[in-house]
Amino acid sequence: MSSILGTLFRVSTFGESHGAGVGVVVDGCPPRIPLQEADLQQELDRRRPGQSKIVTPRKEDDKAEILSGVADGLTTGTPVAVLVRNTDQRPSAYKEMESAYRPSHADYTYDAKFGIRSVSGGGRASARETIGRVAAGAIARKVLQASLPGYEAVAYVRTVQNLSVSEASLHGVRADVVESNIVRTCDSSAAEQMIALIEKMRAEGNSVGGIIECVVRGVPPGLGEPVFDKLEADLAKAMLSLPATKGFEIGSGFAGTALTGREHNDEFYMEGERVRTRTNRSGGIQGGISNGEDIVFRVGFKPTATILTEQQTVTNKGADTTLAARGRHDPCVLPRAVPMVEAMVHLVIVDHWLRQRAISA
Amino acid sequence: MSSILGTLFRVSTFGESHGAGVGVVVDGCPPRIPLQEADLQQELDRRRPGQSKIVTPRKEDDKAEILSGVADGLTTGTPVAVLVRNTDQRPSAYKEMESAYRPSHADYTYDAKFGIRSVSGGGRASARETIGRVAAGAIARKVLQASLPGYEAVAYVRTVQNLSVSEASLHGVRADVVESNIVRTCDSSAAEQMIALIEKMRAEGNSVGGIIECVVRGVPPGLGEPVFDKLEADLAKAMLSLPATKGFEIGSGFAGTALTGREHNDEFYMEGERVRTRTNRSGGIQGGISNGEDIVFRVGFKPTATILTEQQTVTNKGADTTLAARGRHDPCVLPRAVPMVEAMVHLVIVDHWLRQRAISA
Amino acid sequence: MSSILGTLFRVSTFGESHGAGVGVVVDGCPPRIPLQEADLQQELDRRRPGQSKIVTPRKEDDKAEILSGVADGLTTGTPVAVLVRNTDQRPSAYKEMESAYRPSHADYTYDAKFGIRSVSGGGRASARETIGRVAAGAIARKVLQASLPGYEAVAYVRTVQNLSVSEASLHGVRADVVESNIVRTCDSSAAEQMIALIEKMRAEGNSVGGIIECVVRGVPPGLGEPVFDKLEADLAKAMLSLPATKGFEIGSGFAGTALTGREHNDEFYMEGERVRTRTNRSGGIQGGISNGEDIVFRVGFKPTATILTEQQTVTNKGADTTLAARGRHDPCVLPRAVPMVEAMVHLVIVDHWLRQRAISA
Amino acid sequence: MSSILGTLFRVSTFGESHGAGVGVVVDGCPPRIPLQEADLQQELDRRRPGQSKIVTPRKEDDKAEILSGVADGLTTGTPVAVLVRNTDQRPSAYKEMESAYRPSHADYTYDAKFGIRSVSGGGRASARETIGRVAAGAIARKVLQASLPGYEAVAYVRTVQNLSVSEASLHGVRADVVESNIVRTCDSSAAEQMIALIEKMRAEGNSVGGIIECVVRGVPPGLGEPVFDKLEADLAKAMLSLPATKGFEIGSGFAGTALTGREHNDEFYMEGERVRTRTNRSGGIQGGISNGEDIVFRVGFKPTATILTEQQTVTNKGADTTLAARGRHDPCVLPRAVPMVEAMVHLVIVDHWLRQRAISA
Repeated sequence: MSSILGTLFRVSTFGESHGAGVGVVVDGCPPRIPLQEADLQQELDRRRPGQSKIVTPRKEDDKAEILSGVADGLTTGTPVAVLVRNTDQRPSAYKEMESAYRPSHADYTYDAKFGIRSVSGGGRASARETIGRVAAGAIARKVLQASLPGYEAVAYVRTVQNLSVSEASLHGVRADVVESNIVRTCDSSAAEQMIALIEKMRAEGNSVGGIIECVVRGVPPGLGEPVFDKLEADLAKAMLSLPATKGFEIGSGFAGTALTGREHNDEFYMEGERVRTRTNRSGGIQGGISNGEDIVFRVGFKPTATILTEQQTVTNKGADTTLAARGRHDPCVLPRAVPMVEAMVHLVIVDHWLRQRAISA
Repeated sequence: MSSILGTLFRVSTFGESHGAGVGVVVDGCPPRIPLQEADLQQELDRRRPGQSKIVTPRKEDDKAEILSGVADGLTTGTPVAVLVRNTDQRPSAYKEMESAYRPSHADYTYDAKFGIRSVSGGGRASARETIGRVAAGAIARKVLQASLPGYEAVAYVRTVQNLSVSEASLHGVRADVVESNIVRTCDSSAAEQMIALIEKMRAEGNSVGGIIECVVRGVPPGLGEPVFDKLEADLAKAMLSLPATKGFEIGSGFAGTALTGREHNDEFYMEGERVRTRTNRSGGIQGGISNGEDIVFRVGFKPTATILTEQQTVTNKGADTTLAARGRHDPCVLPRAVPMVEAMVHLVIVDHWLRQRAISA
Repeated sequence: MSSILGTLFRVSTFGESHGAGVGVVVDGCPPRIPLQEADLQQELDRRRPGQSKIVTPRKEDDKAEILSGVADGLTTGTPVAVLVRNTDQRPSAYKEMESAYRPSHADYTYDAKFGIRSVSGGGRASARETIGRVAAGAIARKVLQASLPGYEAVAYVRTVQNLSVSEASLHGVRADVVESNIVRTCDSSAAEQMIALIEKMRAEGNSVGGIIECVVRGVPPGLGEPVFDKLEADLAKAMLSLPATKGFEIGSGFAGTALTGREHNDEFYMEGERVRTRTNRSGGIQGGISNGEDIVFRVGFKPTATILTEQQTVTNKGADTTLAARGRHDPCVLPRAVPMVEAMVHLVIVDHWLRQRAISA
Repeated sequence: MSSILGTLFRVSTFGESHGAGVGVVVDGCPPRIPLQEADLQQELDRRRPGQSKIVTPRKEDDKAEILSGVADGLTTGTPVAVLVRNTDQRPSAYKEMESAYRPSHADYTYDAKFGIRSVSGGGRASARETIGRVAAGAIARKVLQASLPGYEAVAYVRTVQNLSVSEASLHGVRADVVESNIVRTCDSSAAEQMIALIEKMRAEGNSVGGIIECVVRGVPPGLGEPVFDKLEADLAKAMLSLPATKGFEIGSGFAGTALTGREHNDEFYMEGERVRTRTNRSGGIQGGISNGEDIVFRVGFKPTATILTEQQTVTNKGADTTLAARGRHDPCVLPRAVPMVEAMVHLVIVDHWLRQRAISA
């Protein structure tokens, strides 16, 4: 199950950074959904290396091939398999990693777990693993959009290190605004500073992290389950399963712990026939179930572990050593993580939506 | 799956606040583990209402009966079912809830999802639902302690609203210290202030939230899975599945996003035969897999939604109304949430530990 | 998962023959289904010991208590837990079993698997384990009947040892006819002979087996999944998971292997708007998916392993010994297995029906 | 889950007969198992079309490419993805199928389920779907052979229509004997008659079915779970999930229902330190758990539904029509089904073996 997610819309990802390819099998995709390779490619291009000056220059076309499950442009209800061939393999760049454990990478823990590791490119711990997620997320989005008018998930960079967007920019964030700058933030004027900071970090062989916020619109009330499969619980798992994530908060989040109940509660009112809340500290979910308001959450990403300065570490034989990375890397993962966050949202929502349909005919 | 958790150690909880009882079935518990009802009772007493002056005065004995799966004090490998009878049912206290949606509760969303609701006591959204988790967690702990010397999970209140513990108190937190004060914080001197704040809130019919931190010791390297079932992802889901939670962060968490990679990375060194890290910003997990360091995470809890002052809301017929709660409630959920957090940790760790045993014979 | 079944309608059974009780938790039951304890009791009474002169005289009331998930006579969408207390515990009758392995029972294999065994009554290998299934099956039937007019599963004894029903009796088998004789066969005139044979076997301390056939009516076309979760595959698993079963066949079954394709194929024709087949060698399922015809299958049950004559065996210490059972037992499991077969059908069909609803809104 | 099987060793298959390719992702394969493409190819060649004069002449190389999860000839513990490209696509041959439902095929039920169908080649209902299973089974076999000395599953044709092997040939069946004749039977002298029958059927445009028996050796005692996941239940599901299967029986099977308990029971005795049974009517499994004896079961396969004579049927518009197949087909599926049966055995056993390791360290 380590690489399988979902109850009804089940995705099974595969592939390493430097093997033959990476991809995903989606089992349980509903039939008769329009789907083309271009739908996947659009999202894969947003997570692709080499897309801008602030991401890794690694060159990968990341061309998606749909192997099954689609006929005449429609899903058939059978598994949709997607394959992306690897093209830019440079195992030699990873020679040192064979023996020295990179600090804050998964080298040591993979060895501890499996007693073996496909060294080059970080194996399944590579960000390249997320290609399968993004492709599957694009399929999930098509399914949701076919039934839920107005459904969309818009993620954006809210902070890079200590640089934050303006409060004003957080209202009614539009996808096209986010996509208009290479750092993928909702505040175009903050974008320049963020880009400058990231470029400075790259120049210094250092790295930075930050916070991505995501708003999900058009989710009907009633999605999510009591107890373990609460909608926010599945979102939290989905986000913390992304590489480099350190935290998740929904609605008022950690800051909400400083309020009293009187200040924090979201009062209900009627908007025509629709039950609404005046505030949205709940973040669109109450008791694990969507209430029809926007779902809003934030994800913290640590600074990229790959830095180009020398660090103390040990080898897989238990000897002290030093290591300075030479592989190409992202000085900040956030711009490429935006489509990953959205993809994970789609996967969580589509699964809960199908589950809800099963009991609510 | 909404009330089922786990791949190998699978817990299925049941029960509402005001039905016949609540409980859990644990499927997949390994055989020959010493287990008595007292093992469960000890933990259930820590989450029980009425245990101190700062929790709800609702009177429930919460006596656990093991219905199956244990013979002569040892687990048999077959399902362990646990039942706790409800005793203090006062449906009348919940009369108003039948029609008016309580703000920031799950009343509306349950109606939206199921088209029906067992009104009294909040149904499955009641904190009473966690009894099954705590009982199952106590079983999981016995399993882990039978194999992993030194394994323990110690949770403690780190902040209540704006009151925080001292930095010094966070080093080497001991379970007996936490248990020595009724708010269950690691800082005995902060405890008094916290208690005073909670009592003040109760007097005002208001409520507060805060942050629980948890340290998990004695987890061997190698637990957790690449990709979706990362150990921190499963912990995040487990925590966000608890009532009233709004956020989860591990290791450096959100604060870590302000550091550069050079500042953030955990360098490796050898301590005898053991690979260690000099710092622990990773929080004991790297690439989704435990590295043998303490696992450290924090969970944000919102202020209790039940407050005794009048609030605007709507009825299930779509009419405006006002509501002032009268049911007994906790002015702060944190003291009783501490054993819940620990229980969820045990459930996540035991499942991953069994999964790792399967591939590492 | 050993005691958990289903993807959406998930049942988790628990309990041993001689512990505190047995039961089941149903997670994923749709809301607003009328349900009372009497619905369960009716089916439990059909599988109860002591119901007639040809079953074990063991005295158990088997009174079902619904612990959760139902309010005002309707399911709430939350887990339905059912408990049946054990009353007739006679551990002393099982004294010898503690050391000697009963031939063709699960004593040895449980020891081999778990290294421990709850000896009295056979533990989870006891037929008493099926109480949870029958209770859950009764719930599943209510769910199906609420949506599928004409849905019913009618199982009946087709052969006892070498005694078979008439061909004529197999057409349009009615549940009330089956229930009108204590052996639960569709052929009232064959019933007497079957009863006489079973009584003779009991008198001799011997036992017999036989074949149960089941017809499932009112299943719409489209249930079942390609590949692994074919409807007949899940039925086969469900049936072979019942105690004492040795075989499963659907439609033409093993006999169909003697026909040529020309003889075997079911030609299609239109009956009004409905696609029908002229013959039903497919048994109502084609390519793993129901086609709207009656689903018809057979299950072979071995003769009860408990016999009262002396048998050679070994002890759990590896010593040769002899054993003559003294416990009360069924000389033929078939009469009580009829409601078990029906229950398993309901569980399989309801799960596939919910899965189909999820993708076909 | 329709195309996903297993709890720990999870296989997710994909692909249609006439799309880009077919394959499988294996999640949960233990690390450090020697694995090469040749291991898969050997088994794929046994199920390949065109391998002999009695199978379909369809030309497919069925070359397996391992896309991930293997490094330097060893599994890494991460998902093993396998792709087999389709090469011999002749959609035109399937023109008539677009509208007319082929009798006893899955054309109608796929339309009923999905409202759409990838017509050419039968989609997921094509035997080509089993390529993923056979590839995954070959991986599972490597895992089992690495730990269980003497483990092997040998399947063989026992009957073709009314032609059966000799009783003598059923003792100690050897894989090389089975592989020495193109019909894959254990009785070389019966093989000729069987081949002649199959050729006669092909000449007549007709088809035949038969029974495959399988013996599994070297399975240790203790595999399988009480209740739902009994080892024979999972084998039954695995077999009934194969195309064209109509029945499954284990050990004494349906014939055993004619014996009395006294005749049927398997008495225990000691063979050195090992508990053995004198007879094996249990078929190697008691109470759902392996007892260390050979596991022996049989699977009934119907005659191939594709025949070349005209049949009555209806179109997807509800009109009467006639249909005579023209596609290439197998006049008897059994020779190619032998490796499929073995593959499914490996998948079931490896999953239960990993599950048992998890609780028995």
